[in-house]
Amino acid sequence: MARTQGSHSDITGPKVRDTALRLFAQHGYAAVSMRQIAREVGVQVGALYNYTPDKQALLFSLLKGHMDELLSTWEAEPRPDGPRDRLEAFVRFHIRFNLDRPQAIFISYMELRNLAPENFAVIEAQRKVYEGALEAILRDGQSEGVFSVPDTRLASYALIAMLTGVNTWYRAGGRLSIEEVADIYWDMVRKSVSAD
Amino acid sequence: MARTQGSHSDITGPKVRDTALRLFAQHGYAAVSMRQIAREVGVQVGALYNYTPDKQALLFSLLKGHMDELLSTWEAEPRPDGPRDRLEAFVRFHIRFNLDRPQAIFISYMELRNLAPENFAVIEAQRKVYEGALEAILRDGQSEGVFSVPDTRLASYALIAMLTGVNTWYRAGGRLSIEEVADIYWDMVRKSVSAD
Repeated sequence: MARTQGSHSDITGPKVRDTALRLFAQHGYAAVSMRQIAREVGVQVGALYNYTPDKQALLFSLLKGHMDELLSTWEAEPRPDGPRDRLEAFVRFHIRFNLDRPQAIFISYMELRNLAPENFAVIEAQRKVYEGALEAILRDGQSEGVFSVPDTRLASYALIAMLTGVNTWYRAGGRLSIEEVADIYWDMVRKSVSAD
Repeated sequence: MARTQGSHSDITGPKVRDTALRLFAQHGYAAVSMRQIAREVGVQVGALYNYTPDKQALLFSLLKGHMDELLSTWEAEPRPDGPRDRLEAFVRFHIRFNLDRPQAIFISYMELRNLAPENFAVIEAQRKVYEGALEAILRDGQSEGVFSVPDTRLASYALIAMLTGVNTWYRAGGRLSIEEVADIYWDMVRKSVSAD
C-alpha cells in the first residue's frame, strides 16, 4: 500500500485499516463508502487515496493481512512430535487466534464474495495452505494408525468449520474461559478422528 | 405480509421474496435498495410496498420463513427410537436441508447483524429451538450412556457449525454425492460424541 511521506502516515495507515475493518464488519463492504471511511478516520476523502488506491484494495489488504498473520503465527507455533499432539496444538491455536480477531474472521468469511477474481484467487490459495496444514496432520495420523478418517480433505473442512464456529457464540466473561472451551472442543475433535 | 388483492399477487409475492433473497445474498442487505428490488422484479417501487412495509420487514420475513420451514420440516421427519439413530437422522437432515437452500443459509448467518432488535429476538429464539432439538438428543444419549459429551450445549453448537460448513465448499456434480458427504460427516459426528 502506498503511503504519503510525513509524520502522520504511521498513525493514519493503521487507523484507516482499523476503521475499514470495523465498518465492513458492521455494515458490509458494499454498503460502506470511501467517504464514510474518511469521515470516521477524520481525513478528507482525497487523503485516503494516499493509503489505498481504492476500496477493493483496502478489502484485499485486510483479508490478505489476516491470512498472512494466521499462516505466519501458526508457522511460529511450537510443533509437537506426534500427530495427536500436533492436532491438539492446531485446535487450541485456531480457537485462540480466531477469538482474538472476531471482526477479521467475520469479514474473511462474509466478504469473499466481494473480492475481485484475482484477489479471491490469492486468498483462496492462502486458505488452502492453512487447510493443508491440518490435512497433513490428519494424513500423518492416518498413516501411523492413530487416526481413522474416511476423507482427510473433508475432515479438515469439517474441523475448521467446527472450530471457527466458536466465534459465533463465545462471549468473553461468560461461564467458560477460552481454555475451557478449547478443552471441550479438543475432546470432540480428538474422538471425531480417532481410530476406534 | 400484506398483499394486494388481484390476480398477480400470488405470482408477484414469491417473486419479490426470491429476488430479495438473491440480491441480499449477492450484495448484502445494506447495499440493496427497495428501488433495485422493484427494478429486478419488474414493478414500480410503489407497488413493492403492497407486498412488504419496508426492507427490514422483507429481511425478517425471509429469515423467519427459513426458520419456520427448518423447524416444521425437522418436526415432520421420521423420529427413530434411540439417541444414536436420532443423531444420525439429524446429521443427514441438516446437511440435505442446508444444501438445498444455500442463499437462505448464507443470509441467515450474514444478515443477523442487520435485523432490528425485536426481529433478531424472534430469529434467535427459533435458532435456540433448533439447537435445543439437537441438545435433547445429546442429553438423552448421555443419560443412556451411549454418548459422552463434556458439555451438551457446546457440543450442539460445535456439531451445527461443522455440518453447516458443508455449504461453504460443496458443489453439486463434484466428486462426492450429498449422500457420500453425509456418510463421512456422520462418521465424524458419531465418534465425536461417543462414550469411548
